[in-house]
Amino acid sequence: MTDHLDRLRVVLVATRNPLNIGAVARAMSNFGVMRLRVVRPYEPSFREARSAVGASELLANAEEFATVADAVADCRLVVGTTAAGRRELHHELRPLQEGGLAIRRQLKTAPVAVLFGSERVGLSNQDLSHCHWLMRIPTRAEHGSMNLGQAVAVSLYELVRAGKIAPGKNEKKLSKIVDAERFTQILFQILLSSGYVTRGVATTEEKLRRMVRRLDLQAADEEMWLGMLRQIAWKVGAKLDKAAEKDAATRRSAR
Amino acid sequence: MTDHLDRLRVVLVATRNPLNIGAVARAMSNFGVMRLRVVRPYEPSFREARSAVGASELLANAEEFATVADAVADCRLVVGTTAAGRRELHHELRPLQEGGLAIRRQLKTAPVAVLFGSERVGLSNQDLSHCHWLMRIPTRAEHGSMNLGQAVAVSLYELVRAGKIAPGKNEKKLSKIVDAERFTQILFQILLSSGYVTRGVATTEEKLRRMVRRLDLQAADEEMWLGMLRQIAWKVGAKLDKAAEKDAATRRSAR
Repeated sequence: MTDHLDRLRVVLVATRNPLNIGAVARAMSNFGVMRLRVVRPYEPSFREARSAVGASELLANAEEFATVADAVADCRLVVGTTAAGRRELHHELRPLQEGGLAIRRQLKTAPVAVLFGSERVGLSNQDLSHCHWLMRIPTRAEHGSMNLGQAVAVSLYELVRAGKIAPGKNEKKLSKIVDAERFTQILFQILLSSGYVTRGVATTEEKLRRMVRRLDLQAADEEMWLGMLRQIAWKVGAKLDKAAEKDAATRRSAR
Repeated sequence: MTDHLDRLRVVLVATRNPLNIGAVARAMSNFGVMRLRVVRPYEPSFREARSAVGASELLANAEEFATVADAVADCRLVVGTTAAGRRELHHELRPLQEGGLAIRRQLKTAPVAVLFGSERVGLSNQDLSHCHWLMRIPTRAEHGSMNLGQAVAVSLYELVRAGKIAPGKNEKKLSKIVDAERFTQILFQILLSSGYVTRGVATTEEKLRRMVRRLDLQAADEEMWLGMLRQIAWKVGAKLDKAAEKDAATRRSAR
């Protein structure tokens, strides 16, 4: 596909309503975005949506994940979506139009995930901590919260539409790190061993994750950053997850 | 309203599904388009949608008409919407983006109606005969037919969006970190104490300096990054330059 929409993953987090899951799948199919991922869906709903008469192949092929981290592991750029009125202090908020352009550009070289939260509460702070930035649909302040299927339709329309516009010149360069989550995890273990954070303080981990994503970590520097962190981790006696380390090494060598 | 959306009428023709009528009303409210008109709706559906819990004032104020002619009588411009794949020989077909601009222009001086057909068959030739031209949402040929609520959401988004083409201006600007050098120095001392670098290797220090500058370190995060680094430095027994630390503290308090 010339516009690389095959690299786009729509990620639904904690969706409850089967009609909404079906509506999302339909909008995706309309705009030619075929890769749906769901994170801890309300199981009866997900089963119902999948088995509905006329349920699409797209829905049958939807991938299910236990965590946002797993669902976006292969994506270079992770973008959250949010409604009007929500106070969002930790992330850069881009208008849909501008965000769409940035996503299109990243899709030329690597997979991108766009996250949509649950109908009632949207994306949690924990979910958001995996995002590089947020995209906002320009709904009015008095009634900002959109229906899920409509929010997905509008977002995907913007992505399809944006392909037909000359890209802006002075747009901020995108971060290029391959494994920001690995960076976050090792650093967090170092901070635990150093006594900067106490075990069990999830908010610090979230805050750290957001800070790391605000860095413009570049792929060319990735090995050296991770090498430094591992050395420091060893020095402070931090326990790194062996399985994850091995996994990361495998992924790197597979590139 | 400066963008004249109060002159826009969304006209649903022969809609059958009450959930769809509700979804249309919600999308309209999201984008600040408050004038809904319905032409020969399936009566039980329309009643059900109107009386639904949480049904909006917008829905309560919806106007009902027996014919398309009556519903668009006060409008200077009447635009039909259509899905991909439909053969349309009698009307000019404009992409949504282009059509949206034309509608915006007309709204400055007179009311405009945008027509949406029934879920199953869309707009009839009879309905279409009232239209000046048609607008097409860029769905793919293999699956062109959109859900009604989603089609309305996408169309209205395009109308709202078209009025706001000033990308980048209101983007949240984040200031760069003030003291990247301090960050570099503390990190370098940590790496020395951890055995990652050996004292006297100037190239590593330079490389590190360049890497730190490639990061998009932000002023808002500066204190936390430096705090983390100092804690790690303490843990690995790194010697920080007291004078420089004091100097940095003074500069910070002077800001």
